Amino acid sequence: MTKAVLLVLLVLVAVCSTQGKPEQKNIPKRGKRIPQTLSRGWGDQLIWAQTYEEALYWSRWRNKPLLVIFHLEDCPHSALMKKAFADDKEVQKILDEDFIVLNLMYETTDKHLSPDGQYVPRFLFVDPSMTVRADITGRYSNRMYAYEPVDMKILLESMAKAKKLLKTEL
Amino acid sequence: MTKAVLLVLLVLVAVCSTQGKPEQKNIPKRGKRIPQTLSRGWGDQLIWAQTYEEALYWSRWRNKPLLVIFHLEDCPHSALMKKAFADDKEVQKILDEDFIVLNLMYETTDKHLSPDGQYVPRFLFVDPSMTVRADITGRYSNRMYAYEPVDMKILLESMAKAKKLLKTEL
Repeated sequence: MTKAVLLVLLVLVAVCSTQGKPEQKNIPKRGKRIPQTLSRGWGDQLIWAQTYEEALYWSRWRNKPLLVIFHLEDCPHSALMKKAFADDKEVQKILDEDFIVLNLMYETTDKHLSPDGQYVPRFLFVDPSMTVRADITGRYSNRMYAYEPVDMKILLESMAKAKKLLKTEL
Repeated sequence: MTKAVLLVLLVLVAVCSTQGKPEQKNIPKRGKRIPQTLSRGWGDQLIWAQTYEEALYWSRWRNKPLLVIFHLEDCPHSALMKKAFADDKEVQKILDEDFIVLNLMYETTDKHLSPDGQYVPRFLFVDPSMTVRADITGRYSNRMYAYEPVDMKILLESMAKAKKLLKTEL
Protein backbone atom coordinates (compact mmCIF):
# COMPACT_ATOMS: atom_id res chain seq x y z
CA MET A 1 0.00 0.00 0.00
CA THR A 2 2.75 2.39 1.01
CA LYS A 3 4.61 1.45 -2.13
CA ALA A 4 1.59 2.21 -4.29
CA VAL A 5 1.17 5.65 -2.71
CA LEU A 6 4.87 6.32 -3.22
CA LEU A 7 4.59 5.27 -6.85
CA VAL A 8 1.63 7.59 -7.42
CA LEU A 9 3.56 10.40 -5.78
CA LEU A 10 6.57 9.71 -7.96
CA VAL A 11 4.43 9.73 -11.10
CA LEU A 12 2.85 13.01 -10.00
CA VAL A 13 6.26 14.56 -9.41
CA ALA A 14 7.39 13.35 -12.84
CA VAL A 15 4.33 14.88 -14.50
CA CYS A 16 4.75 18.13 -12.63
CA SER A 17 8.41 18.42 -13.46
CA THR A 18 7.69 17.83 -17.15
CA GLN A 19 5.07 20.56 -17.10
CA GLY A 20 7.38 22.85 -15.21
CA LYS A 21 10.27 22.29 -17.62
CA PRO A 22 11.51 25.62 -18.96
CA GLU A 23 10.60 26.14 -22.60
CA GLN A 24 13.32 26.01 -25.21
CA LYS A 25 13.22 29.72 -25.93
CA ASN A 26 15.97 31.66 -27.63
CA ILE A 27 18.41 33.41 -25.29
CA PRO A 28 20.61 35.92 -27.13
CA LYS A 29 24.36 35.31 -27.03
CA ARG A 30 24.93 38.36 -24.84
CA GLY A 31 22.52 37.08 -22.20
CA LYS A 32 18.87 37.42 -21.33
CA ARG A 33 17.31 40.80 -22.05
CA ILE A 34 14.73 42.65 -19.98
CA PRO A 35 11.61 42.98 -22.16
CA GLN A 36 11.14 46.52 -23.49
CA THR A 37 8.14 48.37 -22.07
CA LEU A 38 5.87 50.73 -23.96
CA SER A 39 6.15 53.25 -21.11
CA ARG A 40 9.95 53.40 -21.44
CA GLY A 41 10.02 54.79 -17.90
CA TRP A 42 7.48 57.60 -18.43
CA GLY A 43 4.92 55.92 -16.16
CA ASP A 44 4.55 52.15 -15.97
CA GLN A 45 0.98 52.43 -14.71
CA LEU A 46 -0.28 54.43 -17.70
CA ILE A 47 -1.81 52.69 -20.70
CA TRP A 48 0.41 53.76 -23.61
CA ALA A 49 -0.59 53.78 -27.25
CA GLN A 50 2.03 52.16 -29.46
CA THR A 51 1.76 54.35 -32.58
CA TYR A 52 0.43 57.78 -33.52
CA GLU A 53 -2.35 56.19 -35.62
CA GLU A 54 -3.43 54.08 -32.64
CA ALA A 55 -3.29 57.10 -30.30
CA LEU A 56 -5.43 59.21 -32.68
CA TYR A 57 -7.93 56.36 -32.94
CA TRP A 58 -8.28 56.12 -29.13
CA SER A 59 -8.39 59.89 -28.74
CA ARG A 60 -11.34 60.17 -31.15
CA TRP A 61 -13.08 57.07 -29.83
CA ARG A 62 -12.84 58.02 -26.16
CA ASN A 63 -13.07 61.78 -26.75
CA LYS A 64 -9.94 62.42 -24.72
CA PRO A 65 -7.04 64.71 -25.59
CA LEU A 66 -3.78 63.03 -26.57
CA LEU A 67 -0.36 63.84 -25.16
CA VAL A 68 2.58 62.92 -27.41
CA ILE A 69 6.03 62.95 -25.80
CA PHE A 70 9.08 62.90 -28.06
CA HIS A 71 12.25 61.83 -26.28
CA LEU A 72 15.56 60.00 -26.69
CA GLU A 73 17.08 57.42 -24.40
CA ASP A 74 20.58 58.94 -24.50
CA CYS A 75 19.44 62.54 -23.95
CA PRO A 76 20.10 63.75 -20.36
CA HIS A 77 17.29 66.35 -20.56
CA SER A 78 14.85 63.60 -21.55
CA ALA A 79 16.11 61.41 -18.70
CA LEU A 80 15.68 64.12 -16.05
CA MET A 81 12.24 65.09 -17.32
CA LYS A 82 11.20 61.43 -17.51
CA LYS A 83 12.02 60.90 -13.84
CA ALA A 84 10.15 64.04 -12.73
CA PHE A 85 7.22 63.09 -14.95
CA ALA A 86 6.99 59.47 -13.78
CA ASP A 87 7.31 60.49 -10.12
CA ASP A 88 4.64 63.21 -10.28
CA LYS A 89 1.56 61.53 -8.84
CA GLU A 90 -0.82 64.30 -9.91
CA VAL A 91 0.39 64.36 -13.52
CA GLN A 92 0.22 60.57 -13.73
CA LYS A 93 -3.27 60.42 -12.19
CA ILE A 94 -4.75 63.03 -14.53
CA LEU A 95 -3.12 61.43 -17.56
CA ASP A 96 -4.42 58.02 -16.52
CA GLU A 97 -7.97 59.26 -16.15
CA ASP A 98 -8.37 61.95 -18.80
CA PHE A 99 -5.76 61.51 -21.53
CA ILE A 100 -4.49 59.17 -24.21
CA VAL A 101 -0.69 58.96 -23.97
CA LEU A 102 2.03 58.13 -26.46
CA ASN A 103 5.80 58.40 -26.16
CA LEU A 104 7.95 58.24 -29.28
CA MET A 105 11.67 58.09 -29.91
CA TYR A 106 11.26 58.53 -33.67
CA GLU A 107 9.56 61.37 -35.49
CA THR A 108 6.33 60.69 -37.35
CA THR A 109 5.63 61.82 -40.91
CA ASP A 110 3.14 64.39 -39.54
CA LYS A 111 4.91 67.78 -39.62
CA HIS A 112 2.22 69.27 -37.36
CA LEU A 113 3.91 67.45 -34.49
CA SER A 114 7.06 69.58 -34.85
CA PRO A 115 5.76 73.17 -35.09
CA ASP A 116 9.13 74.65 -34.09
CA GLY A 117 11.55 71.80 -34.77
CA GLN A 118 12.32 68.22 -33.82
CA TYR A 119 14.08 68.68 -30.47
CA VAL A 120 13.56 66.44 -27.41
CA PRO A 121 11.99 66.28 -24.93
CA ARG A 122 8.94 67.76 -26.64
CA PHE A 123 5.31 67.64 -25.44
CA LEU A 124 2.50 68.08 -27.95
CA PHE A 125 -1.20 67.94 -27.19
CA VAL A 126 -3.70 66.78 -29.82
CA ASP A 127 -7.44 67.40 -29.60
CA PRO A 128 -9.87 64.47 -30.25
CA SER A 129 -10.83 66.40 -33.42
CA MET A 130 -7.26 65.46 -34.50
CA THR A 131 -6.04 69.06 -34.30
CA VAL A 132 -2.51 69.48 -32.96
CA ARG A 133 -2.78 72.10 -30.19
CA ALA A 134 0.19 74.26 -31.23
CA ASP A 135 -1.28 76.94 -28.92
CA ILE A 136 -0.47 74.89 -25.79
CA THR A 137 3.15 75.65 -24.97
CA GLY A 138 5.63 75.68 -22.10
CA ARG A 139 7.70 78.68 -21.02
CA TYR A 140 10.65 78.61 -23.41
CA SER A 141 10.31 80.89 -26.43
CA ASN A 142 13.00 79.09 -28.44
CA ARG A 143 11.63 75.60 -27.72
CA MET A 144 7.97 76.18 -27.17
CA TYR A 145 6.99 72.56 -26.47
CA ALA A 146 9.81 71.77 -24.05
CA TYR A 147 9.26 71.30 -20.32
CA GLU A 148 11.90 70.76 -17.64
CA PRO A 149 11.59 69.09 -14.22
CA VAL A 150 10.99 72.53 -12.62
CA ASP A 151 8.05 73.06 -15.02
CA MET A 152 5.69 70.39 -13.71
CA LYS A 153 3.15 73.05 -12.66
CA ILE A 154 3.27 74.58 -16.15
CA LEU A 155 2.77 71.12 -17.62
CA LEU A 156 -0.28 70.66 -15.37
CA GLU A 157 -1.63 74.00 -16.65
CA SER A 158 -1.06 72.86 -20.25
CA MET A 159 -2.90 69.62 -19.45
CA ALA A 160 -5.81 71.64 -18.03
CA LYS A 161 -5.93 73.67 -21.28
CA ALA A 162 -5.89 70.49 -23.37
CA LYS A 163 -8.83 69.12 -21.36
CA LYS A 164 -10.97 72.02 -22.61
CA LEU A 165 -11.70 70.35 -25.91
CA LEU A 166 -12.01 72.28 -29.14
CA LYS A 167 -15.43 72.35 -30.73
CA THR A 168 -15.41 70.48 -34.00
CA GLU A 169 -17.36 71.82 -36.95
CA LEU A 170 -20.75 70.26 -37.50
CA MET B 1 33.33 52.09 21.48
CA THR B 2 30.64 49.51 20.97
CA LYS B 3 28.04 52.22 21.48
CA ALA B 4 29.66 54.42 18.84
CA VAL B 5 29.65 51.58 16.32
CA LEU B 6 26.01 50.86 17.12
CA LEU B 7 25.13 54.52 16.61
CA VAL B 8 26.87 54.61 13.24
CA LEU B 9 25.00 51.45 12.27
CA LEU B 10 21.69 52.95 13.37
CA VAL B 11 22.35 56.12 11.37
CA LEU B 12 23.25 54.02 8.33
CA VAL B 13 20.04 52.01 8.67
CA ALA B 14 18.07 55.25 8.96
CA VAL B 15 19.69 56.66 5.82
CA CYS B 16 19.11 53.45 3.92
CA SER B 17 15.48 53.21 4.93
CA THR B 18 14.88 56.79 3.81
CA GLN B 19 16.45 56.06 0.47
CA GLY B 20 14.48 52.86 0.18
CA LYS B 21 11.16 54.58 0.86
CA PRO B 22 8.72 53.77 -1.95
CA GLU B 23 8.07 56.71 -4.25
CA GLN B 24 4.66 58.35 -4.23
CA LYS B 25 3.68 57.04 -7.63
CA ASN B 26 0.17 56.89 -8.97
CA ILE B 27 -1.58 53.55 -8.55
CA PRO B 28 -4.78 53.32 -10.62
CA LYS B 29 -8.02 52.76 -8.72
CA ARG B 30 -8.40 49.25 -10.11
CA GLY B 31 -4.99 48.22 -8.80
CA LYS B 32 -1.45 48.07 -10.04
CA ARG B 33 -1.00 47.23 -13.70
CA ILE B 34 1.69 45.08 -15.27
CA PRO B 35 3.69 47.37 -17.60
CA GLN B 36 2.89 46.73 -21.28
CA THR B 37 5.73 45.23 -23.29
CA LEU B 38 6.62 46.06 -26.87
CA SER B 39 6.89 42.32 -27.64
CA ARG B 40 3.27 41.72 -26.53
CA GLY B 41 4.21 38.05 -26.16
CA TRP B 42 5.73 37.56 -29.64
CA GLY B 43 9.24 37.08 -28.19
CA ASP B 44 10.42 38.96 -25.11
CA GLN B 45 14.07 38.53 -26.10
CA LEU B 46 13.72 40.22 -29.47
CA ILE B 47 14.40 43.94 -29.85
CA TRP B 48 11.11 45.31 -31.21
CA ALA B 49 10.69 48.54 -33.13
CA GLN B 50 7.83 50.67 -31.81
CA THR B 51 6.51 52.16 -35.05
CA TYR B 52 6.68 51.44 -38.78
CA GLU B 53 8.77 54.59 -39.35
CA GLU B 54 11.27 53.44 -36.72
CA ALA B 55 11.35 49.92 -38.18
CA LEU B 56 11.99 51.23 -41.71
CA TYR B 57 14.78 53.44 -40.36
CA TRP B 58 16.51 50.50 -38.66
CA SER B 59 15.98 48.24 -41.66
CA ARG B 60 17.72 50.71 -43.98
CA TRP B 61 20.40 51.60 -41.46
CA ARG B 62 21.32 48.00 -40.58
CA ASN B 63 20.55 46.60 -44.04
CA LYS B 64 18.31 43.92 -42.59
CA PRO B 65 14.88 42.85 -43.80
CA LEU B 66 11.92 43.84 -41.67
CA LEU B 67 9.14 41.53 -40.50
CA VAL B 68 5.85 43.26 -39.65
CA ILE B 69 3.28 41.19 -37.75
CA PHE B 70 -0.30 42.45 -37.58
CA HIS B 71 -2.31 40.87 -34.78
CA LEU B 72 -5.08 41.48 -32.26
CA GLU B 73 -5.10 40.59 -28.59
CA ASP B 74 -8.63 39.16 -28.63
CA CYS B 75 -8.14 37.08 -31.79
CA PRO B 76 -7.71 33.34 -31.02
CA HIS B 77 -5.76 32.74 -34.27
CA SER B 78 -3.33 35.50 -33.30
CA ALA B 79 -2.99 34.02 -29.81
CA LEU B 80 -2.21 30.50 -31.08
CA MET B 81 0.27 31.77 -33.65
CA LYS B 82 1.89 34.03 -31.06
CA LYS B 83 2.57 31.10 -28.77
CA ALA B 84 4.03 28.94 -31.55
CA PHE B 85 6.10 31.88 -32.78
CA ALA B 86 7.48 32.85 -29.36
CA ASP B 87 8.29 29.22 -28.53
CA ASP B 88 10.10 28.50 -31.79
CA LYS B 89 13.76 28.82 -30.89
CA GLU B 90 14.96 28.76 -34.51
CA VAL B 91 12.54 31.46 -35.68
CA GLN B 92 13.42 33.65 -32.68
CA LYS B 93 17.17 33.17 -33.15
CA ILE B 94 17.14 34.07 -36.86
CA LEU B 95 14.89 37.07 -36.24
CA ASP B 96 17.16 38.25 -33.44
CA GLU B 97 20.27 38.06 -35.59
CA ASP B 98 19.12 38.92 -39.09
CA PHE B 99 15.84 40.87 -38.96
CA ILE B 100 14.22 44.05 -37.70
CA VAL B 101 10.88 43.16 -36.07
CA LEU B 102 7.69 45.08 -35.47
CA ASN B 103 4.30 43.89 -34.20
CA LEU B 104 1.27 46.11 -34.65
CA MET B 105 -2.32 45.94 -33.45
CA TYR B 106 -3.38 48.93 -35.57
CA GLU B 107 -3.09 49.31 -39.32
CA THR B 108 -0.67 51.87 -40.72
CA THR B 109 -1.56 54.39 -43.41
CA ASP B 110 0.66 52.44 -45.86
CA LYS B 111 -1.68 50.38 -48.07
CA HIS B 112 1.26 48.28 -49.30
CA LEU B 113 1.14 46.48 -45.96
CA SER B 114 -2.28 45.04 -46.75
CA PRO B 115 -1.94 43.65 -50.30
CA ASP B 116 -4.96 41.32 -49.88
CA GLY B 117 -6.81 42.86 -46.94
CA GLN B 118 -6.41 43.79 -43.29
CA TYR B 119 -6.91 40.40 -41.59
CA VAL B 120 -4.87 39.14 -38.62
CA PRO B 121 -2.51 37.49 -37.98
CA ARG B 122 -0.65 38.77 -41.05
CA PHE B 123 3.09 38.62 -41.74
CA LEU B 124 4.66 41.04 -44.18
CA PHE B 125 8.33 41.27 -45.07
CA VAL B 126 9.88 44.56 -46.13
CA ASP B 127 13.24 44.85 -47.90
CA PRO B 128 15.81 47.40 -46.62
CA SER B 129 15.14 49.24 -49.91
CA MET B 130 11.69 49.89 -48.32
CA THR B 131 9.93 47.60 -50.78
CA VAL B 132 7.11 45.52 -49.29
CA ARG B 133 7.81 41.93 -50.37
CA ALA B 134 4.29 41.04 -51.53
CA ASP B 135 5.91 38.05 -53.29
CA ILE B 136 6.72 36.34 -49.98
CA THR B 137 3.56 34.50 -48.95
CA GLY B 138 2.33 31.61 -46.84
CA ARG B 139 0.24 28.71 -48.12
CA TYR B 140 -3.31 30.11 -48.03
CA SER B 141 -4.54 31.50 -51.34
CA ASN B 142 -7.35 33.55 -49.75
CA ARG B 143 -5.12 35.06 -47.04
CA MET B 144 -1.71 35.04 -48.61
CA TYR B 145 0.19 36.55 -45.66
CA ALA B 146 -1.35 34.38 -42.94
CA TYR B 147 0.60 31.64 -41.16
CA GLU B 148 -0.73 29.16 -38.62
CA PRO B 149 1.12 27.26 -35.88
CA VAL B 150 1.53 24.26 -38.26
CA ASP B 151 3.24 26.58 -40.78
CA MET B 152 6.41 27.39 -38.84
CA LYS B 153 8.54 25.67 -41.51
CA ILE B 154 6.86 27.74 -44.22
CA LEU B 155 7.51 30.85 -42.18
CA LEU B 156 11.18 29.87 -41.93
CA GLU B 157 11.25 29.48 -45.73
CA SER B 158 9.68 32.91 -46.12
CA MET B 159 12.30 34.34 -43.77
CA ALA B 160 15.05 32.72 -45.86
CA LYS B 161 13.56 34.37 -48.98
CA ALA B 162 13.44 37.75 -47.23
CA LYS B 163 17.11 37.42 -46.30
CA LYS B 164 18.00 37.39 -50.01
CA LEU B 165 17.83 41.16 -50.30
CA LEU B 166 16.56 42.86 -53.41
CA LYS B 167 19.07 44.85 -55.39
CA THR B 168 18.26 48.52 -55.25
CA GLU B 169 18.70 50.64 -58.34
CA LEU B 170 21.96 52.56 -58.50
